[in-house]
Amino acid sequence: MKHNDIPKPEKDKLIIGIDLGGTKIGIALVNRNGQIKDYLKTSTLAEQGREKVVGRLLQNICHMINKSRENDNEISGIGIGIPGPVNSKLGIVNFAPNLPGWDNVPIKNILEKELNIPVKIENDANAAAWGEKIYGVAQGVNDLICITLGTGVGGGLILDGKIYHGKNFYAGEIGHMVVNKEGPQCNCGGYGCLEVYSSATGIRNRIFLKIEESKKNETISRAIAEIDFNIGLAKIFQQAREGHPVFHEIVNEAIEYLGMGITSLVNLLNPEMIVLAGGIANEGDNLLKPIKKIVFQRAMSSHLEDFKLVLGSLGDFAGVIGSAALFWDAEK
Amino acid sequence: MKHNDIPKPEKDKLIIGIDLGGTKIGIALVNRNGQIKDYLKTSTLAEQGREKVVGRLLQNICHMINKSRENDNEISGIGIGIPGPVNSKLGIVNFAPNLPGWDNVPIKNILEKELNIPVKIENDANAAAWGEKIYGVAQGVNDLICITLGTGVGGGLILDGKIYHGKNFYAGEIGHMVVNKEGPQCNCGGYGCLEVYSSATGIRNRIFLKIEESKKNETISRAIAEIDFNIGLAKIFQQAREGHPVFHEIVNEAIEYLGMGITSLVNLLNPEMIVLAGGIANEGDNLLKPIKKIVFQRAMSSHLEDFKLVLGSLGDFAGVIGSAALFWDAEK
Repeated sequence: MKHNDIPKPEKDKLIIGIDLGGTKIGIALVNRNGQIKDYLKTSTLAEQGREKVVGRLLQNICHMINKSRENDNEISGIGIGIPGPVNSKLGIVNFAPNLPGWDNVPIKNILEKELNIPVKIENDANAAAWGEKIYGVAQGVNDLICITLGTGVGGGLILDGKIYHGKNFYAGEIGHMVVNKEGPQCNCGGYGCLEVYSSATGIRNRIFLKIEESKKNETISRAIAEIDFNIGLAKIFQQAREGHPVFHEIVNEAIEYLGMGITSLVNLLNPEMIVLAGGIANEGDNLLKPIKKIVFQRAMSSHLEDFKLVLGSLGDFAGVIGSAALFWDAEK
Repeated sequence: MKHNDIPKPEKDKLIIGIDLGGTKIGIALVNRNGQIKDYLKTSTLAEQGREKVVGRLLQNICHMINKSRENDNEISGIGIGIPGPVNSKLGIVNFAPNLPGWDNVPIKNILEKELNIPVKIENDANAAAWGEKIYGVAQGVNDLICITLGTGVGGGLILDGKIYHGKNFYAGEIGHMVVNKEGPQCNCGGYGCLEVYSSATGIRNRIFLKIEESKKNETISRAIAEIDFNIGLAKIFQQAREGHPVFHEIVNEAIEYLGMGITSLVNLLNPEMIVLAGGIANEGDNLLKPIKKIVFQRAMSSHLEDFKLVLGSLGDFAGVIGSAALFWDAEK
């Protein structure tokens, strides 16, 4: 056997998956099985403007490329999840509320020109949904909705096995389904949106509003006297379970409205699965069980036959894994 | 030139479009341009059971076939709109609330065996939506929602240019989106569904309930003393416009909830067009204008960029034309 014939270990074909957030950028090297081979996290510093952020992206991508070359691996693509609506066909960011200056940015072209590697972009909630389909809890599922419960309430729709974008790539705004005709104004300009009640921001806002309102009521005000205004969401849910009057009421409403919104989604779209992901989903069964109870009481029995309501399985890495998964359009 | 060479007029290729309703069956001969060449209407007599109804269908289809043969035309397909969920792939009626005995009926196979002509079936609201896309107001539109406002509130979703069925062919239940968390029970078993407020049945029920409730209130009860319990919907809308206190309140709420539901659909699915069809849509601008006002005030501005909210253009023939259109999967 000549030296040349010694079989080399097969090169691992890797994708760089990027979760471009308003405050942090997550960058991962992901293999065909959805395993993370390397990961780094850096600050976005979005306020420095688009060019600086693109520069930071390039720098960190190059760092990852170099590291993978050291291990003799090839990067065959870069997938990026964007926190806003994107034209994923053309690779253009329409706008991103938390990234100043990112209006109509042809980020796919910019990066491909610099790096000479194929780039795909997608709205971050859509990417997370796709990640759950390709590598997560929704493998083999063709009709699924992924609800990301965090600062806002976002959503990704996978219908007939494909990400559904709508006419102008704006589809999936589950947080802006109207759940209360008489509800307060939402950041979007509308009124009574699900996000007002069931996002982390919404829950916090409503708690503090309730505290202000109830300051005149002595029995309640005694109970809430010790609330720390920087209280975390986990603590809010815990105190709600322990029966704190204000927390209990607001968290209960958050869950009720979420159950109502999910019931509408089940009746409207007849999905096989709805996946709850994002920060609030870390509450696990404490969140899942009461929502399940509402949905299975309220939705149409025909629609519930094969329906599953579950927690996402990719956790904090849903963003980077989902963005990498954009390069796989079939099951692994 | 020999006799044989004289060119015959080209045969018109016709489809039989059938609107199978709970009380009436509409059958039409429809040409490639969506024009109705012949039409007949007969009673369903659903209470006589499935076999009798199938017999009646066959008899009337044969009548249409014979008539079209007299004119030397060929029937190249039969499309049927069914008032319930159907597996349109297999041609099986899952069930139909207003057609006793129609559970798991392979109507496509039954009719094809008898007639030797290709048969396609579809849920009636989906067929109406498809009709508006192929021959009506939504020609060229790939993302559209058709809302049928009648006894109930039904819907057909056309997403990415195709009818969207969901996992088990139950998608499109727009009438069972939940619009009021605290609302009364709906026929579907759920609570606070859009149909409770904005269907013809819902509007009538709520008016009579209001009358019962307000009998103790003298000023209101004087105003409603003359209500005819068989009052038609057109009359209800007219009296609402003229300021009748009960009618005004209930019709106003019907419109508000419909506006709220449509806002959710716009934000969730980013459609290019929503078409209002069915009996209530006969109210025309009196219905369309106030709903438009709500939706364009409440929905996200990004989603409203290219969005159109319109009345259907196929009127009472949407059912038969849409069912015939099932044989055309591209624009005419």
